[in-house]
Amino acid sequence: MTQTTSPPALTEAQTRRILQAVDAHFDAQLAFTQDLVRFPSLREQEHTAQDFLYEAMRARGFAMDRWKIDVKDIESHPGFGPVTVSYENAFNVVGTYRPSRQQGRSLILNGHIDVVPTGPVDMWSRSPWDPAIIDGWMYGRGAADMKAGLAANLYAYDAVRAAGYEPAAPIYFQSVVEEECTGNGALSALLRGYQADAVIIPEPEENMLVRANVGVLWFKVRVQGHPTHTREMANGFNAIDAAYAAIEALRGIEAKWNAEHHCHRHFEHLDHPINFNIGKIEGGDWPSTVPPWCEFDVRAAIYPGTTADEARAQIDACLRDAVADPRLGGTPPQVAYTGFYAEGYVLEEGSDAENTLRDCHQQAFKSELESFTTPGYLDARVFVIYGDMPTLVYGPKSLDIHGFDERVHIESLRLITKTIALFIAQWCGISETNAQAD
Amino acid sequence: MTQTTSPPALTEAQTRRILQAVDAHFDAQLAFTQDLVRFPSLREQEHTAQDFLYEAMRARGFAMDRWKIDVKDIESHPGFGPVTVSYENAFNVVGTYRPSRQQGRSLILNGHIDVVPTGPVDMWSRSPWDPAIIDGWMYGRGAADMKAGLAANLYAYDAVRAAGYEPAAPIYFQSVVEEECTGNGALSALLRGYQADAVIIPEPEENMLVRANVGVLWFKVRVQGHPTHTREMANGFNAIDAAYAAIEALRGIEAKWNAEHHCHRHFEHLDHPINFNIGKIEGGDWPSTVPPWCEFDVRAAIYPGTTADEARAQIDACLRDAVADPRLGGTPPQVAYTGFYAEGYVLEEGSDAENTLRDCHQQAFKSELESFTTPGYLDARVFVIYGDMPTLVYGPKSLDIHGFDERVHIESLRLITKTIALFIAQWCGISETNAQAD
Repeated sequence: MTQTTSPPALTEAQTRRILQAVDAHFDAQLAFTQDLVRFPSLREQEHTAQDFLYEAMRARGFAMDRWKIDVKDIESHPGFGPVTVSYENAFNVVGTYRPSRQQGRSLILNGHIDVVPTGPVDMWSRSPWDPAIIDGWMYGRGAADMKAGLAANLYAYDAVRAAGYEPAAPIYFQSVVEEECTGNGALSALLRGYQADAVIIPEPEENMLVRANVGVLWFKVRVQGHPTHTREMANGFNAIDAAYAAIEALRGIEAKWNAEHHCHRHFEHLDHPINFNIGKIEGGDWPSTVPPWCEFDVRAAIYPGTTADEARAQIDACLRDAVADPRLGGTPPQVAYTGFYAEGYVLEEGSDAENTLRDCHQQAFKSELESFTTPGYLDARVFVIYGDMPTLVYGPKSLDIHGFDERVHIESLRLITKTIALFIAQWCGISETNAQAD
Repeated sequence: MTQTTSPPALTEAQTRRILQAVDAHFDAQLAFTQDLVRFPSLREQEHTAQDFLYEAMRARGFAMDRWKIDVKDIESHPGFGPVTVSYENAFNVVGTYRPSRQQGRSLILNGHIDVVPTGPVDMWSRSPWDPAIIDGWMYGRGAADMKAGLAANLYAYDAVRAAGYEPAAPIYFQSVVEEECTGNGALSALLRGYQADAVIIPEPEENMLVRANVGVLWFKVRVQGHPTHTREMANGFNAIDAAYAAIEALRGIEAKWNAEHHCHRHFEHLDHPINFNIGKIEGGDWPSTVPPWCEFDVRAAIYPGTTADEARAQIDACLRDAVADPRLGGTPPQVAYTGFYAEGYVLEEGSDAENTLRDCHQQAFKSELESFTTPGYLDARVFVIYGDMPTLVYGPKSLDIHGFDERVHIESLRLITKTIALFIAQWCGISETNAQAD
C-alpha cells in the first residue's frame, strides 16, 4: 500500500476542468461501451473482449498484465469457488498506470467482463449484442452489468488526463472474469499481488454506494427416480416430483434465514434479503418413462459473517433430512458445490475512501450520496475480506440486468463517470501536465 | 380379408411336432434376439436394426417391403401423432409369406423396433446393449419391449415350417417404428394396405391377453418466467415455480379422470388407470438468474371411447384456467402436442381369434389364458379402431421395461413362442410339406 496523507482538495477550477473533460469525451465513451457490449462475453468466451480491453489499455500507455486463471493457484484459498468449466480462455487483464512521481494514494478500478446468458433471444426487443441507445438508455446483455462501468473506469482516467493532470499514484485497471459464477477472477487478481489504498467497482447500483452485501453459494442438487413404464407408474417414483420435494426443503432454510434478518446489521430493514433461486432444472429423457433423475441449480444467499462452510453444513443437513419425504423414495439428494462459495461483506462506515467518494458524488450529482444493502453477489468481498481494502461498489442506474432488454441509463453513466474522474484526482492526487484539455 | 371357415383343429401329433420344433430352435431364437438387442434402435436410429430384420425376413423367402414413413401420407388420419423429429431414417419393414395354395385365415404378426432411452447408463448393471442371459432372464434395453416378441414372430413361423408344415394363408411379418412415441409406424403400415383376419402383437404382457388399453397423448407445456437478477428476485417470477403450478393443475385433471374409472368398462377395478407422467423437464440457464422459461413433457392417458380431441380440449382448458395461479405471473402456459394423439381400445370378447389364442395358450402353458386391462399405449389401437381387425396383444413376462436393467423371462418367451406357432398353424391352417422336422 502507498497510504500517505490526503492530497489537497481539488480546486473549483480543477473540478470544473475534469467534469468538462468527461462531457467532452462522453460520445467516445458511449461508442467504446457499445463496442464492448458487442462482444458476447459469456462465461468461457470472455477472451475476445479481454483482448479488446487489453489493446485499449495498452494504447493508453499502461503496463500490461494478462494471465490465464490457473485453478491450482487459487483453489486452496477460502474464497475460492469450485470450477465446473474449462479455464482455457479465462484471462484476466490488468493495465497499470504509474505516475512519474509517486505521492498520492493508489487505486484499483475494477470491473468484470463476463455476462450471464441471454435466455431466449426472441424475448428481447433486439439482439442482446446490439447496443442501441434509445430514449436515454443503452441496451444489451452486459451493458449495465457491467461494461458501462468498465468503460467508465478508463474514460474517467482519460478525462483527468485530458483536463491536463497526471494522477500522482498508481492506478490498476482490472478487467476480471468469473464475477457471475465464482468470483475466481477477482480472487486471482488479488493473489497475483494487486493491492491498493482503495478500490472502486462501478457495478450498476442506482447511483448509490453498497454498504453491505450477501455472500452466495452455488450448488447442484441431483435426485434419483425409479424409472418404470408409465403403465406401472405407481411402482416407480418420479425424479421430477422428488426434485420438488428437495426444493421445498430448501425453501425451509430460506425462510428460516430470512426470519433472522433483524439479527444482522444492515439487513434489519430488509424483509427478504436471502434469496434461494432455483435457476436451472433438467430431468428425464422420455415422456412415457418415469424420469430416472432430475437435477437443479441453486443460488443461495448468506449473511455477512456467515462462512460458506457454515452455510454449506446447514444446506447439506437439510437435504439429508429431506429423505424423510416419501417423494424422494428413500434416496437422499446428492449435492455438489458448483461455483460461488463466497462470504458477504460490510463496508465499514467512515473510511477516507468513502468520504472522498461522498464529496466527489456531491460535485458530480449535486445531491447526497446514499448507501444501501444489496442482496446480490459482488467481487468486493474479495478485496474487503481477503485484501482489507476499502472497496466502493458504486455505479449507474440500470434496468433488467440478467433479464431481457438489460439496459443502462446514459445520463446516470455520465455522472458516475464524473464521480470516478473526480475520485481519481482527489484520491491519487494530481499534478499539472503540459497537455491541457482546454 | 380372407376370412373363411376355420381350419380343422390341429391333431395331437401336429401340436407335438410344432412344440418340439420351437424347442429345437430356441437357442437360435435367443441368439437372434440378442443380436437384435445389440442394435441401439432408439428413436431416429431404428434403421440399422430394420435392415437386419429385412435380411432375416428375406432369408426366409418372404416378399419384402421397406418404406420410409412419409408424414404427408398419414397426417390427415385421426390416429396420427404430431411429429417433432426427422423421419429420415424411419423405415418400416414388412415381409410377406404367401402360401402356394391359399385356404386359411390371414395373419399379421406385428412388433415395434424402437426402444426408449436408457437413462443414465451407470445405473444399469451392464450396458443396455449387452444382452446377457443371467438366471433365466435376458437383459437389455428393448429385450422385453419388444425385441423378444419380434424374434418370436419369426421363430414361431420357423417352427411351423421345421415341423413340416406350410401355413395355408398369408402372414405379414411387420416390424414398425414409432410405437414408443406416436404410433405412426403402425398407422403407416395400416394405410399402406396391410390387412388380415387377425393380428398378434407379442408385447411384454406377462403371458396374458390385453383386454382393454388406454389411449395416450403427449404434449409439451412451456411456461414463461420474468428473468431478473436474483438480488431483485421478488420483482421477477420463476418459470420453474410456474412449471410446478402448471403441473399441479394437470394433476387435477388426472385425479378427476381417475375418479371416473368406474364409469369405464374394463377399468372399474383399477384405482389409478390414468397416469399423467411428467417425463422430462428443462428450464433456465443460469443459477443466479430468475429462470425465464421452463418446459416439461407430459404423457397423459385417456379411456377408450374418449377421443384425443376431447381430451385435448380438457387439457387446454385446464392450462388456460391455470393462469389464475399467481405463480404463473399472468401468462397462460403454452401447450404443444408432440407425439401420441391416440385413442384407447377394447378387444371385444368372443372373437374366433381370441378363442384360438386361448386354445393355443392352453396347449403351450398348460394353464388358462388370462386377460387384463393395461394402462399403457399399444399399437393395437391402430388395427382395432381403424382396421377393424381382432388384435391380440399377448407376450412374455418382463421386468423394468423403460427402466434400468430391462429384461425378459426366457422360459416365458419359449412358451409364448409356442403359443404363436400353434396359433399360426391353427389360424392359417397348414398342409404337409416334403421337408419334415423329425
